[in-house]
Amino acid sequence: MGKTTTVGQYLIRRLLQRGVKHVFGVPGDYVLGFYDQMVESRIETVGTVTEAGAAFAADAYARVNGLGAVCVTYCVGGFNTLNPIAGTYAEKSPVVLISGAPGLDQRATHPLLHHRVRDFDTQLKIFEKVTVASAALEDPDTAPDQIDAVLAACIRAKRPVYLELPRDIVSMKCRAPGKVAAEEPKSDPATLGEALAEAEAMLRKAKRPAILAGVEIHRFGLQESILKLVEKSGYPVAATLLGKSVITERHAQYVGVYEGAMGREDVRREIERADCLLILGAFMTDINLGVYTARLDVAKTINATSETTAIKHHHFDKIELKDFINGLARITARHPRRKAVKRAEQRPFKPQPSRAVTVRRFFKRMNDFLGEDMMVIADIGDSLFGAADLTIHRRTEFLSPAYYTSMGFAIPAALGAQVARPDLRPVVFVGDGAFQMTSQELSIIARRKLNPIIFLLNNKGYTTERYINEGPYNDIQEWAYHRMPDLLGAGWGCEVRTEAELEVALEQAKAHTLGFSILNVHLDPLDRSVALERLGRRLAKQGGFEPGKKTR
Amino acid sequence: MGKTTTVGQYLIRRLLQRGVKHVFGVPGDYVLGFYDQMVESRIETVGTVTEAGAAFAADAYARVNGLGAVCVTYCVGGFNTLNPIAGTYAEKSPVVLISGAPGLDQRATHPLLHHRVRDFDTQLKIFEKVTVASAALEDPDTAPDQIDAVLAACIRAKRPVYLELPRDIVSMKCRAPGKVAAEEPKSDPATLGEALAEAEAMLRKAKRPAILAGVEIHRFGLQESILKLVEKSGYPVAATLLGKSVITERHAQYVGVYEGAMGREDVRREIERADCLLILGAFMTDINLGVYTARLDVAKTINATSETTAIKHHHFDKIELKDFINGLARITARHPRRKAVKRAEQRPFKPQPSRAVTVRRFFKRMNDFLGEDMMVIADIGDSLFGAADLTIHRRTEFLSPAYYTSMGFAIPAALGAQVARPDLRPVVFVGDGAFQMTSQELSIIARRKLNPIIFLLNNKGYTTERYINEGPYNDIQEWAYHRMPDLLGAGWGCEVRTEAELEVALEQAKAHTLGFSILNVHLDPLDRSVALERLGRRLAKQGGFEPGKKTR
Repeated sequence: MGKTTTVGQYLIRRLLQRGVKHVFGVPGDYVLGFYDQMVESRIETVGTVTEAGAAFAADAYARVNGLGAVCVTYCVGGFNTLNPIAGTYAEKSPVVLISGAPGLDQRATHPLLHHRVRDFDTQLKIFEKVTVASAALEDPDTAPDQIDAVLAACIRAKRPVYLELPRDIVSMKCRAPGKVAAEEPKSDPATLGEALAEAEAMLRKAKRPAILAGVEIHRFGLQESILKLVEKSGYPVAATLLGKSVITERHAQYVGVYEGAMGREDVRREIERADCLLILGAFMTDINLGVYTARLDVAKTINATSETTAIKHHHFDKIELKDFINGLARITARHPRRKAVKRAEQRPFKPQPSRAVTVRRFFKRMNDFLGEDMMVIADIGDSLFGAADLTIHRRTEFLSPAYYTSMGFAIPAALGAQVARPDLRPVVFVGDGAFQMTSQELSIIARRKLNPIIFLLNNKGYTTERYINEGPYNDIQEWAYHRMPDLLGAGWGCEVRTEAELEVALEQAKAHTLGFSILNVHLDPLDRSVALERLGRRLAKQGGFEPGKKTR
Repeated sequence: MGKTTTVGQYLIRRLLQRGVKHVFGVPGDYVLGFYDQMVESRIETVGTVTEAGAAFAADAYARVNGLGAVCVTYCVGGFNTLNPIAGTYAEKSPVVLISGAPGLDQRATHPLLHHRVRDFDTQLKIFEKVTVASAALEDPDTAPDQIDAVLAACIRAKRPVYLELPRDIVSMKCRAPGKVAAEEPKSDPATLGEALAEAEAMLRKAKRPAILAGVEIHRFGLQESILKLVEKSGYPVAATLLGKSVITERHAQYVGVYEGAMGREDVRREIERADCLLILGAFMTDINLGVYTARLDVAKTINATSETTAIKHHHFDKIELKDFINGLARITARHPRRKAVKRAEQRPFKPQPSRAVTVRRFFKRMNDFLGEDMMVIADIGDSLFGAADLTIHRRTEFLSPAYYTSMGFAIPAALGAQVARPDLRPVVFVGDGAFQMTSQELSIIARRKLNPIIFLLNNKGYTTERYINEGPYNDIQEWAYHRMPDLLGAGWGCEVRTEAELEVALEQAKAHTLGFSILNVHLDPLDRSVALERLGRRLAKQGGFEPGKKTR
């Protein structure tokens, strides 16, 4: 094969073939050559203020688009992405981290290059621990295969990967990229058959079967498969918190988000009393399970993920999640249950003008506010707990780091999500503590004239933490959040204290379509969502909030 | 020994004994128990907005105080400190990173705890790569020895260490701490004698000896030793950029900062024409050496650091830097050179009222502005290059990450430095790109009513990068930086465009002693300091800026 392209151009071509049209990042000298190549290509670089912001944005972009990428410089850049990249590993979001590095030609003669920490491969060794594949491209002859292998791993595992580009390698000649080989992993037919037969036997006997759908349904693009299963079977379906919105929440069989005692009681009952529960593509994590309040009997569950398929206490390997769900649809079609799900009719919200805004009534109001052209992004804390009960109109338009729970996700995620889907307006719920952490990325939202509506739930500190351990460390400096537009020279902001003010603000925010809106919603520091309230009640019975039992 | 304290209290006691009175950090559930212990102790916790900010603050605190500490939660907290902690490794700043972790009692029964990434020891394994010692405290019987060993390594190597505290271990009983064993490492007498004899032979023949002092002089508290050497020998002395201000810059024999072609020409000549150059406690890094423009002949150097002592091309181990410097003072006292250092008289700055502010004249003006009660903190980029020529009044009151060069150091460093030295007012030079990265920590400066004067050198983007590779990625959103006080509800800000406005602003900033001042100093995007100018001229001769040659 002739050497007709460069290593940098090869990588760009492969990203474009995989659907990556935007790369987030902060430039730095070791990676400027690759930035120049991107500028000349059909990829658009989206400069962020911080590298962490770039990685959160790429994470959200990946969740919406199917693949995302972030490009930074060596160590001082790369290391700042460790936390968000670890988050994409924990929550299975396929992100490609591309880092510049000192040129191979410089290393021998100038060992003490700036940004270096210990060894030249320190950064690579660190990212090996939080990615499913990684490579330092040090030879233009092998670089194409390395790039292909690493990207394939990212797509297959839906987890982050790491590519390191020494400064001088990007312009070296290498072979041109061919077509992307379509890989469709296959189940082992005998294993699949055995597992499905066993599932069928269980389901036939079951009187109250149900489905619990998780985030992998979204990551692996199985929304159609699960919808078919739901409709063929007639079973009620709930979602995990991380998987919220994997099926449209207006579906007649959809019961709500299951999160143990944190979730709605009717959902908890429906799921926990199921005598055969199909758990599909879910992480069984502590937050997902309502901080240990879930009561699920393994002997009554069939739990399939992209990694393994468990029936009761035994496991099957070599079964693809898609094949299993499609198989379940065929089985259940033979003995469907027409279970009428009775859902509480939601009455339209009636504002009480002089009443102070509370978290509880705020989220009720939000349910009416959300429209078809919006997506919801929730940061950590009561923003997430409160948003869990919202009815999301369409599938997969709810983004939140509900398992890894890293604060500061929402603002850069709004950037990444709207770059991926400019037709959808992000509705962002973020607490004051989380907002402060990554507030500067609002600058990029302003620069690109994006128009998220940001609800800054200003409860004057780390409120969720107040319910675990109260201490002076939970107080923070209060900002005039609604004045961010004055600082950034763009956007629109206001303060909200009463329900009357909220109504006016909602109208105005909706009308300000040419830039971001930020509503500084003042709340009592100890006010909390229904979910946090429910959790508190349940845990009080059990005798303690774990982890970090309340000590005072 | 009786078990009379807890593991958490033991650690707190040891930190206090080592002079740590403040711990920077962001609380999180896995570490709240330890936070409660700190709140009850004589240690003051300084909450920051981000964990990266906490680590930068602890770094500055360590540089000023001799030891610093940062305390965060597991993964979502710890990972955010990786970049600044790597910086403390690269630049030898003794910082103790303390991280919470899931309780040992939780791990078996609840493997998918929130914040977890891959394995429970993933964070430990990562920090092993950027620290000199690390330990996860998993047994109250061995924890005291682990704490002692890790802290001793931090003090000895002047580099970061990592301590992981599982949630449940902090309240477990352990033995009480005794006195801190004073450890005074010793040189091997024969090795020291041989090296000093060889040095004496070289120095006796030398006609133009000189001293180049580096940052280790500060880290190891050797300022008195070097001052004695300087005065006994009569040699001229220069500092590296990272070591700037290790001796008072008003000393008669002090010639300036040596940084190859980036530095002043008279300093370059003095150092490069030396026929015996004593390089003491310096990192020979690229930025320190003016991005490869230094011309030092190894055959004429004696290069001693805390790690090794090199004379010409051979090395000696087992020599303590302090012993070597003291030995040199004895030797050189026998054949001193009374070299009159002729320094250019600095004429007082005369403002030209209607003239637009330029980087060059700005830093000239700053030389007159700096007073005895100030310390200088410079961020990366032209803020650092420009500040390099300032005359710092006292020793070790110039802070900058001049080797690792991570942007965003200055604002959190101003916090950490002034918490350590409330009697000194930080004068901060920071570019717009760097400021945006960690701007939120100004919130903590406001909260604590600290009063740094922040010069925001607003050149509308990444100016240093423009001189390497110009591209659209070097432009950033311009903020109304002087309006940060409106957002934070504290502080004072103004805009500066002309020298007349600068004079007024300086007066006002000096008068605003009860809070921070921020001066938005507008500069031309291509304006640059004398140092960057000098570097450009020199590199143009050599045919290129390395790394990342200018491609357009």
